[in-house]
Amino acid sequence: MLKIGIIGAGRIGKVHAESLTKFVKGVEVKAIADPMMTPETAEWARSKGIGEIYKDYKKILEDKEISIVLICSPTDTHSRISLEAIAAGKHVFCEKPIDHDIKKIAEVTAALKKSKVKYQVGFNRRFDHNFMAARAAVEEGKIGELNILKITSRDPAAPPVSYIKVSGGIFLDMTIHDFDMARFMSGAEATEVYAAGGVLVDKAIGEAGDIDTAIITLKLSNGAIAVIDNCRRASYGYDQRVEAFGSLGQVATENDTLSTAVISDASGVTAEKPKYFFLERYMDAYALELSAFVDSVVNDKPVKAGVEDGLKAVLIGVAAKLSLEENRPVKIEEIEKKYGL
Amino acid sequence: MLKIGIIGAGRIGKVHAESLTKFVKGVEVKAIADPMMTPETAEWARSKGIGEIYKDYKKILEDKEISIVLICSPTDTHSRISLEAIAAGKHVFCEKPIDHDIKKIAEVTAALKKSKVKYQVGFNRRFDHNFMAARAAVEEGKIGELNILKITSRDPAAPPVSYIKVSGGIFLDMTIHDFDMARFMSGAEATEVYAAGGVLVDKAIGEAGDIDTAIITLKLSNGAIAVIDNCRRASYGYDQRVEAFGSLGQVATENDTLSTAVISDASGVTAEKPKYFFLERYMDAYALELSAFVDSVVNDKPVKAGVEDGLKAVLIGVAAKLSLEENRPVKIEEIEKKYGL
Amino acid sequence: MLKIGIIGAGRIGKVHAESLTKFVKGVEVKAIADPMMTPETAEWARSKGIGEIYKDYKKILEDKEISIVLICSPTDTHSRISLEAIAAGKHVFCEKPIDHDIKKIAEVTAALKKSKVKYQVGFNRRFDHNFMAARAAVEEGKIGELNILKITSRDPAAPPVSYIKVSGGIFLDMTIHDFDMARFMSGAEATEVYAAGGVLVDKAIGEAGDIDTAIITLKLSNGAIAVIDNCRRASYGYDQRVEAFGSLGQVATENDTLSTAVISDASGVTAEKPKYFFLERYMDAYALELSAFVDSVVNDKPVKAGVEDGLKAVLIGVAAKLSLEENRPVKIEEIEKKYGL
Amino acid sequence: MLKIGIIGAGRIGKVHAESLTKFVKGVEVKAIADPMMTPETAEWARSKGIGEIYKDYKKILEDKEISIVLICSPTDTHSRISLEAIAAGKHVFCEKPIDHDIKKIAEVTAALKKSKVKYQVGFNRRFDHNFMAARAAVEEGKIGELNILKITSRDPAAPPVSYIKVSGGIFLDMTIHDFDMARFMSGAEATEVYAAGGVLVDKAIGEAGDIDTAIITLKLSNGAIAVIDNCRRASYGYDQRVEAFGSLGQVATENDTLSTAVISDASGVTAEKPKYFFLERYMDAYALELSAFVDSVVNDKPVKAGVEDGLKAVLIGVAAKLSLEENRPVKIEEIEKKYGL
Repeated sequence: MLKIGIIGAGRIGKVHAESLTKFVKGVEVKAIADPMMTPETAEWARSKGIGEIYKDYKKILEDKEISIVLICSPTDTHSRISLEAIAAGKHVFCEKPIDHDIKKIAEVTAALKKSKVKYQVGFNRRFDHNFMAARAAVEEGKIGELNILKITSRDPAAPPVSYIKVSGGIFLDMTIHDFDMARFMSGAEATEVYAAGGVLVDKAIGEAGDIDTAIITLKLSNGAIAVIDNCRRASYGYDQRVEAFGSLGQVATENDTLSTAVISDASGVTAEKPKYFFLERYMDAYALELSAFVDSVVNDKPVKAGVEDGLKAVLIGVAAKLSLEENRPVKIEEIEKKYGL
Repeated sequence: MLKIGIIGAGRIGKVHAESLTKFVKGVEVKAIADPMMTPETAEWARSKGIGEIYKDYKKILEDKEISIVLICSPTDTHSRISLEAIAAGKHVFCEKPIDHDIKKIAEVTAALKKSKVKYQVGFNRRFDHNFMAARAAVEEGKIGELNILKITSRDPAAPPVSYIKVSGGIFLDMTIHDFDMARFMSGAEATEVYAAGGVLVDKAIGEAGDIDTAIITLKLSNGAIAVIDNCRRASYGYDQRVEAFGSLGQVATENDTLSTAVISDASGVTAEKPKYFFLERYMDAYALELSAFVDSVVNDKPVKAGVEDGLKAVLIGVAAKLSLEENRPVKIEEIEKKYGL
Repeated sequence: MLKIGIIGAGRIGKVHAESLTKFVKGVEVKAIADPMMTPETAEWARSKGIGEIYKDYKKILEDKEISIVLICSPTDTHSRISLEAIAAGKHVFCEKPIDHDIKKIAEVTAALKKSKVKYQVGFNRRFDHNFMAARAAVEEGKIGELNILKITSRDPAAPPVSYIKVSGGIFLDMTIHDFDMARFMSGAEATEVYAAGGVLVDKAIGEAGDIDTAIITLKLSNGAIAVIDNCRRASYGYDQRVEAFGSLGQVATENDTLSTAVISDASGVTAEKPKYFFLERYMDAYALELSAFVDSVVNDKPVKAGVEDGLKAVLIGVAAKLSLEENRPVKIEEIEKKYGL
Repeated sequence: MLKIGIIGAGRIGKVHAESLTKFVKGVEVKAIADPMMTPETAEWARSKGIGEIYKDYKKILEDKEISIVLICSPTDTHSRISLEAIAAGKHVFCEKPIDHDIKKIAEVTAALKKSKVKYQVGFNRRFDHNFMAARAAVEEGKIGELNILKITSRDPAAPPVSYIKVSGGIFLDMTIHDFDMARFMSGAEATEVYAAGGVLVDKAIGEAGDIDTAIITLKLSNGAIAVIDNCRRASYGYDQRVEAFGSLGQVATENDTLSTAVISDASGVTAEKPKYFFLERYMDAYALELSAFVDSVVNDKPVKAGVEDGLKAVLIGVAAKLSLEENRPVKIEEIEKKYGL
């Protein structure tokens, strides 16, 4: 029975606790820590059978019985806690992004080189049933050589501006998943990025120095071209699709819905909207990513989204930001050189 | 250049005139006749290049130049004019049904046996792109042995009760197309029919002695079972679908729409309704059935829907009527015996 | 914490144990009993945290702490154990059908009238997300008055003939779910049934005295007509659909699939097959039906599928059997009278 | 009866002759001219009722009876013949593009300013049923303010390299339709373009100095962003889709197919491929664009795709070419200034 400690008892920390309890075999969530631990959260934790409830995450790192740590705290603490957890010999599952600062990710990478712990980054979409099916089709050669990759990723509604301000900007907060998806779907690296964007949803987002709508073009190392379209608001729900086109054909995925019911009446033929919320859409994916991580730990297998993947997505994000600022295509190499990678 | 005469200048007569003019090569519509010929219709006919415009259809039968006659007059004249046209040595395309009276159809059959003219019945759905594709799948063995055949046929709105009264009843007026479709899709004969039905759309239809909604089960000679569902009113448009299920799989068709546009918004994901009107849906099929008939005449090929098909569909319709009246399954044989067939 | 005992540790017993453990709050599976309890099953039960493992189900009935009993034993024991459990004051969840014999169901009904326990029948499809959405549309008046109800229910592959022989026949084993679905979707009662069927899948099924393919027409108390099509084998997977058509429109459901991925290539545009297995398709429904039952017990609410529903479905099944044997429509009243109901 | 002369008897000239003959009322194709007129083409023309058959198109321009001229000759003759036809007082329908050379288009524009003739450019996709439905949804405000516009345009197979060499490059030959579609769908102007592209289909296309796959991003004057993806080869057929996303929702179109038949079997659930050939897909659109043009002439209405539209699409194409060559976003203004517009 592997003992797990969860650092951060916010929304995603709770989701992971639920998933581990219900769906992942051979594990026990022994402890959860949050500096803002409320009595309600503590009670919730106890109802899930979590024995130890802390304010200070260091107690988790000090617990010799705990071999796996989930870092679900705010982004600006990810890299620091990662380093401490690695030093404590814990296997680490860290929510994305590892950090907005490439140097700090490099420090985590360096620490991992000297350690034997497993380190997985929370790119949950790699575990989504639709994207896995699409990736399988690409990998099995069903579309031949990849030529064009299209990723649509639109949130149902924009987060509060207070969140936007600390988010690191749309590319590091939202598109980062799509940058990872581009790498996952193609099996190739981005070499250059061009970003066009605007403030079309909410002026306050613009005033906070960010954009809310974007089209990002990626040139890939295998010659294919990828294009991502993002918007912070889709009135019809959470829009998450991918389309991979190649020499032999295309694989495309549609959104998930709550039911397949279709109503035909005088006003048209109407199906359900996509699932509205990311937790709804990706609930199974969250469980699968943790199962996969536990499997990596137990059976000493490579993780399915490692520190390198975490770094690459941030590199593309930083390049996209620069591209938007200077309105020019930016090579990933340029960013790597800047950071001595 | 084959010369054609059209008997009946109502809606379907005009549709055929248009189709022949636009889409069928090697033919000329020389004459059209209608006892109710109006100046407007005559002008319309001239604009289509139709040279001779008559009130009396016999002038068409007397015209030696005319080799093909289309019978588009009211149903109760079909069999009589068929006999006259056959006697005049004309090839005949006759709208469905040939007659409500099986004996009269038998007379046409007898006349044809002694003649060399071609005789096609207006089962236009055999020429619909969707049903042809489904039939092709069945014929090519893609679904293996047929087990279950489901036909949905619903009109957008009920006809006036005045029409209902002379229609011969839903089975001979509306379901007759579906009876033919069951034979066309299966390549088999109906051996027994059970009809359940009711007056759910309009009480006036019930008062006129008819029903407006029905489920009809057919046992087929190949062991498969077919089921037809009919309604005189579908609020969302003209609903015409087929589903053939067999040992290896299923082929199913959907309705046609005016466009593929789909709107996703806060109220749902909405596609267009089916085409609303039978002329809209089957326009191409009408042109194809006439092309096929001309091809049969010119190249001495068998017609794709002959007098036998016209008879069989009416036999099933008469059996269905009896089934509904007596609430029991009725064998087609029973009807055949009754009429000495 | 409600304590639950499960009688029968076969496939469905295990499914329910899993669901209760993972998804149903406020309950504990205290005991499981099976006369054929193997060491493997016992170990599996312990891994789920089930404390008591018996061969004799009576130990469960004797346990005062246990307030809910799930009857997942073979069909021919359902009514007897139901009576014993009711006598022991347990709330009972009983898998369908309660019995093949209407008299025995009547005995259970009588026992329940004198008792205060809750009794739910395992009509899991009432809890399927697609059918619930369709039922909601009907209930909310989105299709107006119901006119036609079509239910498709086809298994991926026929069970072994040994199973067929004790199954009670296709109508009581397979169609029983669809009879319940017809009542659930329509909110009305079946008044008459006509069944057409044949042996089209496997001759051995015919030799065992059963059929494998059927079309069943139901007249409903609200004037609507329902039609069910069944087959024991659908090469493309488990086919479970419903289509409800009314005065204002139609609601139809499609099958669930493992992903939304669609591959377009030179051979066509190909989506995934329906989920193949009933456990795959209805896993969530099984969890929901138990949650609902626990909710009924805890909050003293009416169950969503009671003994009356269990009886009605069997009545229709018995009528369907007679209809097939005598090739005539059979009124449900006729069966009720026969059994003095 | 308007008399029409067609200049150029190649594929598109014949398509237009057919459309005019069959579908456009109140017109007569009086003459057709082609320097390569063959006996077969002449015979075909006569069978369509075209009286005058020339090698020299000037005979058409000299014919006082002819009021409308269709220019269907090779691209490099479009602007010259346009000028001659305008000078001769003919209304002109000119195939796209008017010219690869912006100066020559400017000359046509200048000539039209001094003339009263109608001048329509052959942007047939504006008349496609799917794109018209999508445009209508945008225009009627169904998606609110446009934010993102996505256009997919992929040919089934690359043309011969000999054609590529004289085509003006992918942007002026193929994408030009999509540039027009972006303007048509958005009702806005492109202000800046960034093109990424590669040779992924056929090396010979690269050796001919062109590319075969591209992603083009357009910034629009209304703040929205458009993205076009092009490929010269789609194994599954002619892929022509549009997706317009805005503040209230999205409208998206799918490809047309020959039938709606879907086959479900052990290998999947397979629908038909998109129509393979552009004539198949756009046949109705070709007829509609000519009807619209004749309507503009007869009723003195503005044309639906004028010389200005022809110019704008070429301007974007020239900018896209420069963008690709210099790997930078290019403002349309930059091109306009270069050509003194």
